[in-house]
Amino acid sequence: MSAAGGRVRAVIDAVLPAVDGGRFAVKRVAGEALEGEAHCFADGHDVLRARLLWRAEDATAWQEVEMQPLGNDVWRAQFIPEGIGRYRYSVAAWVDAFATWRHDLARREDPADRAVAVLSGAYLAEEAAARAKDENAGADAQQLADWAKRLRKGIDAALDEEMAAIAARHPDRSLEARWPVEMPLTVDRERARYSTWYELFPRSAGETPGRHGTFADVEKRLAYVAELGFDVLYLPPIHPIGRERRKGKNNAAAAAPDDVGSPWAIGAKEGGHKAIHPALGTLQDFRRLVKAAAKHGMEIALDIAYQCAPDHPYVKEHPEWFRKRPDGSVQYAENPPKKYQDIYPFDFECADWQGLWAELKSVLDFWIGEGVKIFRVDNPHTKAFPFWEWAIGEVRRAHPDVIFLAEAFTRPKVMHRLAKLGYTQSYTYFAWRNSKHELTEYFTELAQGPGREYFRPNVWPNTPDILTEALQIGGRAVFMQRIALAATLAASYGIYGPAYELLEHQPREPGSEEYLDSEKYQLRHWDLARADSLRGYIGALNRIRRDNPALQSDASLRFFGTDNDQLLAYGKQTADGSNQIVCVVNLNPHHAHSGWVELDLGWLGVEPDKPYQVHDLLSGARYLWTGARNYVQLDPQRSPAHVFRLRRRLHREQDFDYFL
Amino acid sequence: MSAAGGRVRAVIDAVLPAVDGGRFAVKRVAGEALEGEAHCFADGHDVLRARLLWRAEDATAWQEVEMQPLGNDVWRAQFIPEGIGRYRYSVAAWVDAFATWRHDLARREDPADRAVAVLSGAYLAEEAAARAKDENAGADAQQLADWAKRLRKGIDAALDEEMAAIAARHPDRSLEARWPVEMPLTVDRERARYSTWYELFPRSAGETPGRHGTFADVEKRLAYVAELGFDVLYLPPIHPIGRERRKGKNNAAAAAPDDVGSPWAIGAKEGGHKAIHPALGTLQDFRRLVKAAAKHGMEIALDIAYQCAPDHPYVKEHPEWFRKRPDGSVQYAENPPKKYQDIYPFDFECADWQGLWAELKSVLDFWIGEGVKIFRVDNPHTKAFPFWEWAIGEVRRAHPDVIFLAEAFTRPKVMHRLAKLGYTQSYTYFAWRNSKHELTEYFTELAQGPGREYFRPNVWPNTPDILTEALQIGGRAVFMQRIALAATLAASYGIYGPAYELLEHQPREPGSEEYLDSEKYQLRHWDLARADSLRGYIGALNRIRRDNPALQSDASLRFFGTDNDQLLAYGKQTADGSNQIVCVVNLNPHHAHSGWVELDLGWLGVEPDKPYQVHDLLSGARYLWTGARNYVQLDPQRSPAHVFRLRRRLHREQDFDYFL
Repeated sequence: MSAAGGRVRAVIDAVLPAVDGGRFAVKRVAGEALEGEAHCFADGHDVLRARLLWRAEDATAWQEVEMQPLGNDVWRAQFIPEGIGRYRYSVAAWVDAFATWRHDLARREDPADRAVAVLSGAYLAEEAAARAKDENAGADAQQLADWAKRLRKGIDAALDEEMAAIAARHPDRSLEARWPVEMPLTVDRERARYSTWYELFPRSAGETPGRHGTFADVEKRLAYVAELGFDVLYLPPIHPIGRERRKGKNNAAAAAPDDVGSPWAIGAKEGGHKAIHPALGTLQDFRRLVKAAAKHGMEIALDIAYQCAPDHPYVKEHPEWFRKRPDGSVQYAENPPKKYQDIYPFDFECADWQGLWAELKSVLDFWIGEGVKIFRVDNPHTKAFPFWEWAIGEVRRAHPDVIFLAEAFTRPKVMHRLAKLGYTQSYTYFAWRNSKHELTEYFTELAQGPGREYFRPNVWPNTPDILTEALQIGGRAVFMQRIALAATLAASYGIYGPAYELLEHQPREPGSEEYLDSEKYQLRHWDLARADSLRGYIGALNRIRRDNPALQSDASLRFFGTDNDQLLAYGKQTADGSNQIVCVVNLNPHHAHSGWVELDLGWLGVEPDKPYQVHDLLSGARYLWTGARNYVQLDPQRSPAHVFRLRRRLHREQDFDYFL
Repeated sequence: MSAAGGRVRAVIDAVLPAVDGGRFAVKRVAGEALEGEAHCFADGHDVLRARLLWRAEDATAWQEVEMQPLGNDVWRAQFIPEGIGRYRYSVAAWVDAFATWRHDLARREDPADRAVAVLSGAYLAEEAAARAKDENAGADAQQLADWAKRLRKGIDAALDEEMAAIAARHPDRSLEARWPVEMPLTVDRERARYSTWYELFPRSAGETPGRHGTFADVEKRLAYVAELGFDVLYLPPIHPIGRERRKGKNNAAAAAPDDVGSPWAIGAKEGGHKAIHPALGTLQDFRRLVKAAAKHGMEIALDIAYQCAPDHPYVKEHPEWFRKRPDGSVQYAENPPKKYQDIYPFDFECADWQGLWAELKSVLDFWIGEGVKIFRVDNPHTKAFPFWEWAIGEVRRAHPDVIFLAEAFTRPKVMHRLAKLGYTQSYTYFAWRNSKHELTEYFTELAQGPGREYFRPNVWPNTPDILTEALQIGGRAVFMQRIALAATLAASYGIYGPAYELLEHQPREPGSEEYLDSEKYQLRHWDLARADSLRGYIGALNRIRRDNPALQSDASLRFFGTDNDQLLAYGKQTADGSNQIVCVVNLNPHHAHSGWVELDLGWLGVEPDKPYQVHDLLSGARYLWTGARNYVQLDPQRSPAHVFRLRRRLHREQDFDYFL
């Protein structure tokens, strides 16, 4: 109990948003407001006041914003943090004697009663004057003192608005209630919320088939990737690849002498997680690539896979970090009966866990030192959770602009935990959500479920590990459809290219989601100039994303009804409604479909009886629609998706119709 | 971080049930299980174990129940607390090396691999043996040691079920995760969940009109109230009534010399909250009443109204507990422009708040000392909330069988807060919920909303302050209908009688919910033998409640569809389905209504194509129904409600149909 003891009458019953009651941070990006809500009340009829408190985590003083009552004991205020970093927020509320007095006075009818009440006001004004003086607000103190004198003389200026405003600046908060939790808030840079990823294997970026690609080759590829509209270029591990138990092409148990191995089998005599595969180039080459990418408006994202090939230097230098089998050999990764003998996992239960943690974090620090600010973390759900909370927390304390993407395709609560622990973005189940029902349910949950405060989806129609059944059988139309969905449903999405734009769709074997001749195990050569490439379509989609802020965040997503289950319709808009996008996608890659789409005109702020224009930003076509229900037809062979921008009718004096 | 440091790999992401993350207690009654749920997982594929921990609040050692995984990382277990009182529960989870080993071993296919794994098992068995020895489980230790020897010799008893069970009793929990909150649980006696209240004014219980009734008169009334089936007899304040500013009949500002005043204007020269109004009798008379009520299976509930008449002894003895106006007078209750000059509220912000709290609590202690175990607290939302948490907590620590009913008809969050702070039961909005939509929505929220863990509704169709519009105009049928709803929708309900059974329905003035000639301000005399009295109907309803445990709790409530908005249908059943009640109520007191009711047969466990019997426990009529949709007709002039007990068909060899 505070010094005020049992005299505190204000109650703060809840503070929102909250992730697990304040155990984990709510996430925002720079420039976004944190809208805080509190459930506050007191006994009886007295007037309450409440303030939202906030501060940078390392600041000592709180900043305060007056909260407004919305009814039903809900109070709200917002603040915009100064920049990226870690913040705290909380709420204070108190029964305000001055506000109560004024509220009551305005309602008093009996003149005698009123006279006594004015005298009470004089006391309150004097007390407020004393507080103003203590707060070094001399002018306020003087005005309040003068006012008190007038009240004592019975001069009835008791409801003076200006005096009320001055008194309100110096409330008596000696009996205030304080929300006991300092709720954490993480403010990221904008790319945490809106990003467009392109994954490529540097070793396949060579211009000559069969030759191992290099960072220099990737540099030459930058213009192409930038033209497609991506802003994050993500590279699978760039480290030396183990030779012991190396896998061959198509995951063959034994590698042929010239097989290049999997980049995720990290470490060989040339080095481990802080080294660069000699065939890719040097650290200098890497630095040059990072800089060249920046010139194209792109960032390099690195893959962090905390696991070792048997010949990783760690295995000899730090045998204590690995589990031993009873025969003395190092325990390889396994999920019986499956064995992954080319991979040694770290033992997060080992006695030297502190040494292990420090070393793993130093890998991040090393690459941050080389200019990398985005990490895609491989299988984080197979490493101890407390490590992530610590490592991400420590890294981001020093470098709040670093972004972590969790590559966890696993059970929902596990994926959510990783996001709570600090991951900036998370892979999703998007690749396996195909039907109208699945997409609607899943993206509604992502946009509106409790995860909206901390789980930022990054959706991928393919990855080097995931060639979905839909992509295997749907032809070019499904490649268009799935990327159109990804680019418009999610503010962050990515593709594994050039496999994607070149429609790569052969599985290693029927029933498998693995690519045939996967780049994971061999070099590939891609003909980027192929006529059927989707490069133009993808570039158009990504330009639409850049031009339309509605597509750069997820919170506003809303699905609309259609009378055809093959047609998915949804919209996004900016908070002020100045940018509104409505998408209609034909989910069937084989047949044209048509039907009626029923927009939520109230949500869009469109008058039900006035025409409005929908402008397809992909085709350039414009349609004049009226009312909620409008007809759409989509032929997947031409384009499976409309990405409409809504344009409202401008009323001009000439009585012509213009559209904004 | 615990001693195990960063090596703890198990994660406990949530523990349920929880009220505000464990800030407040979940409520159960004696004999009920607490079903605990935890969201637990670990990195990777290792096998997790989890236990639900619980203990009486003053016990030092936890009891443990193994939790079972239900899928989706949800684990569940339950325990039944030993009796009423305060408990704590929490969860422990750990990555279990032994269970992981055994799980993997069963899946290993490679013989060499298996042989190495069996050796690992020997190590694990030896470790388990050592732990068993430390835990003084000598026999287990010996068996495990023997088993380890066999494993070392290569004798393949590795998947021995018995050994696994023994090893499971001695897990290695050195790296266990522990839920950081010891979640509070309050276990009440059964009446907290299931109670039937009758409120009467003792001073109107006299046999002669115009004579002030006494406790002795109430004693004579006990048989009547018991015959009606009530188990709580609640008396408005029984203390001396203030003479200063006493209100007259029908709340007249000035009392006539013979006016008896409001029992809620507590205190006069004869005493205050610990005294008895001399006209009602003596403390001895009160004690006799308490004992006599018990013989009828009833408890006396007292009204606690923490406020004073101007001549309450506290006002002189403790002027520091009251707020002063600038003119030196004591601040009376007010909500401008309304004044309640006959009532002085306590000042919960006063400097001597500790003295005030102690005295107020001593009032409870005094009456507990006189055998009172149930308190109906008047307007708790106009007294400081921290006081309630402290006072109820302290009282119930010493007397866990004491029940508090909060008479707060106010905003939802305020009512919920009082329930969280410790109130056992709460008044509700039932009196003002009349339509099918209103009743369905409100009772669904009460039964299934977050409040279900702590907010126990006690529903009243009338009170001395609440004569609803529906009762004013609906005639006898609406009195039957409203009490039938109350008695079957809610496990706890009450009426203010004899006004209720005698159909008292005249308001003081049009548009008012106050009774004309309210007993709050004057004596009344009631003719209990009146032919139109509902005593028989009420007695029947309450007997049905006693005979049917389905009606004695709220959690199972479920509404059924009807094709007529004047027909409300709902059901309740016991957890084992052995007692099932289906009610259909005609909400229109003026006209007969008929329609089709659509039961949820899956929920009731009734086969869709088999007939079943519904037995109206009010009328005795029985109907044979088949399938979900059945026809119902209700004439409110005869009976506005069916209270059916479902009886299933028994299959007997003779091929006759019997119903249980």
